[in-house]
Amino acid sequence: MSLPLLEQLIDAFRILPGVGQKTAQRMAYHVLEREREGAQKLAEVLAKAIERIGHCTQCRDFSETEVCAVCANSSRERAQLCVVESPADRLAIESATGFRGVYYVLQGRLSPLDGIGPRELGLDALGTRLQQGEVQELIIATSATVEGEATAHYLAQLARANNVRPSRLAQGLPLGGELEYVDRGTLSHAFGTRTEAT
Amino acid sequence: MSLPLLEQLIDAFRILPGVGQKTAQRMAYHVLEREREGAQKLAEVLAKAIERIGHCTQCRDFSETEVCAVCANSSRERAQLCVVESPADRLAIESATGFRGVYYVLQGRLSPLDGIGPRELGLDALGTRLQQGEVQELIIATSATVEGEATAHYLAQLARANNVRPSRLAQGLPLGGELEYVDRGTLSHAFGTRTEAT
Repeated sequence: MSLPLLEQLIDAFRILPGVGQKTAQRMAYHVLEREREGAQKLAEVLAKAIERIGHCTQCRDFSETEVCAVCANSSRERAQLCVVESPADRLAIESATGFRGVYYVLQGRLSPLDGIGPRELGLDALGTRLQQGEVQELIIATSATVEGEATAHYLAQLARANNVRPSRLAQGLPLGGELEYVDRGTLSHAFGTRTEAT
Repeated sequence: MSLPLLEQLIDAFRILPGVGQKTAQRMAYHVLEREREGAQKLAEVLAKAIERIGHCTQCRDFSETEVCAVCANSSRERAQLCVVESPADRLAIESATGFRGVYYVLQGRLSPLDGIGPRELGLDALGTRLQQGEVQELIIATSATVEGEATAHYLAQLARANNVRPSRLAQGLPLGGELEYVDRGTLSHAFGTRTEAT
């Protein structure tokens, strides 16, 4: 009754995150009705990206080249190494802070039940790098989730074992947040770790 | 600082409906991290669809062939012609009702301010088809919006000028809806056009 190719297209859109049958259908109709040129471009760029974008051999972030632009930049300080879970996290830190060091992207977090151990996150390679002595501070910027905390704990131990100082992003009230809407865990933690007022 | 190709990919995703910078970024990272095969497939199908899917010469719906499967199906009744605004509307009617007639897809609605007049919606071709005498009932299934109503009004006049009986989808309370949550316009209309209880 309907088009095999149109149905294939709708199906294909469902690989995108948060896209179900209805949204996929809307996307397919939208590009066919109004965005044929843009869709042509998307198809080309997508094919090219899948083919060419690999991982930086130094930081494991996505990169078209063997070493990504940040790692290849000689003006970045190699003594500070910031460990993040994902490329999106790296981007967030890069755009929000003035950090001038380098990154290490885990591409995940420790999750033994899913078969994701230290090796899958490249922590063996990270250990080797810490041993070499160039890194002085390991800034651990994993998520504040259970798995993120477990990963952070592992990273801190790895750093100490190699005489590198581990640090962790500060936890507490978010800036601009109303106290009454902050969750109990955060509030309790912030109360317990209160600092001297200035 | 970041990858040109990755940024191109993020940009390219923004042509999709409802996709802004953040979502596009999430999509790009998602496909690179976890869906390379699916993305490869999406790129192929998308390119193929853009190249091959055109419009059915009879009903203006999307079709890979000159005449779509519904129009080419000899068991459908040609005396009933249902006019819808978009392919998605046609699909909705096809899957919800047992309609056995054929469709005409406007691919839009009358909107003089946007330069969309009768010619852009193929209403001249529709007029010619109504003149030929095969169609007996024109089922007008445009949206209940201002532009949809204007289009419906135009279609009804076009039908009457060609001695075709126009009909319109019933308006009133949606099935299963709580009375108190129905909007004022619908409630007032349903009250005014109440029918005899059975």
